[in-house]
Amino acid sequence: MEEKEISQAVIGRLPRYYRYLGDLKDEGIERISSQDLSKLMQVTASQIRQDFNNFGGFGQQGYGYNVEYLYEEIGKILGLYQEHNLVLIGAGNLGQALANYVNFEKRGFLIRGIFDSNEELLGKEVRGIPVNSMEKLEVFVRENDIDIAVLTIPKTSAEEVAERLVQCGIKAIWNFAHVDLKVPEFIQVENVHLSDSLMKLSYNINRYNNEKKVKE
Amino acid sequence: MEEKEISQAVIGRLPRYYRYLGDLKDEGIERISSQDLSKLMQVTASQIRQDFNNFGGFGQQGYGYNVEYLYEEIGKILGLYQEHNLVLIGAGNLGQALANYVNFEKRGFLIRGIFDSNEELLGKEVRGIPVNSMEKLEVFVRENDIDIAVLTIPKTSAEEVAERLVQCGIKAIWNFAHVDLKVPEFIQVENVHLSDSLMKLSYNINRYNNEKKVKE
Repeated sequence: MEEKEISQAVIGRLPRYYRYLGDLKDEGIERISSQDLSKLMQVTASQIRQDFNNFGGFGQQGYGYNVEYLYEEIGKILGLYQEHNLVLIGAGNLGQALANYVNFEKRGFLIRGIFDSNEELLGKEVRGIPVNSMEKLEVFVRENDIDIAVLTIPKTSAEEVAERLVQCGIKAIWNFAHVDLKVPEFIQVENVHLSDSLMKLSYNINRYNNEKKVKE
Repeated sequence: MEEKEISQAVIGRLPRYYRYLGDLKDEGIERISSQDLSKLMQVTASQIRQDFNNFGGFGQQGYGYNVEYLYEEIGKILGLYQEHNLVLIGAGNLGQALANYVNFEKRGFLIRGIFDSNEELLGKEVRGIPVNSMEKLEVFVRENDIDIAVLTIPKTSAEEVAERLVQCGIKAIWNFAHVDLKVPEFIQVENVHLSDSLMKLSYNINRYNNEKKVKE
């Protein structure tokens, strides 16, 4: 089967559909029209239909989408029904917050090992997982079939750690370090740059204040 | 002065420029051409020029941009040289991680108060700031000129807390709760939906694996 290349913009919207459909399912709603989904999610119905057409349209009939079916299908597309083995590198506050977040586990993202270069943290447990020395990283990744690494370390060491991870066969990096990693193209990277997001908020507050001043 | 409406896509790229320029400045580099900046940031030089033209172009001459000037100007546009007073709501792991992140403070984002509905956390200090009862939220926000609220609480209570914040005059919400808040348009919201980001990563791993299988 030949696959159409699907844009990252469409992919970026799938988790949001998945989230809304999960909520609808929890509320016991069985069917929803693209118009109602459009109102709920504040995107146009045509956007929804276009997005879904990338995946064959999910068989919408005149009477709308089957919520549970759509939820399951989008979950499958997102790869949520497969288990992923993760290591978390950097057991500071943010690393611990992520390790403690049970929802990731429910979706099949299983943190198998935690690593930190700070010797004071060695042996400390986060949700029952002991913090390991960075020296053991490569062997652990290879022996435990790890495919995703979560980087919650300062930007100064992120590049070096990313290189080590690539060498030992990791497939993807969820990067919280405040730097854009230089890794080969076949390594999937998803960045969460928290400062960037806060700066955008700051800009929008300013802009709004300035507009208000102009009007006053 | 009439201001052009600048797209959120452009705004979304400014923090990344700011980050790269800060690194260049730290390395002692005084000037950079749009070509060199383009190579470094892996975006086209024409994209850079177009983005900067939204703000008057920052006076690039034949010999490139002045790094420090450009850094300062983008910082000003982003509103980073003004202080913002923040409250953090939800003193769990993620909330504590954010409260402990000193870089936000360097950029003028000052956490003034921390609130949690969990009575066991009351009085506990995070970076010297005591965790307060949710009952004190409104008075605190009004008396301390708070403009940004950071929401690190479960989605079940996020909507209600957001409404309370809007009522007492907050300007912006940095939302980590896994829900899209329904707030008036004049409230600036920036969402960090961590699960969405992890799901996107999961999709891209799958897609890459499938492509590889097709080729093999």
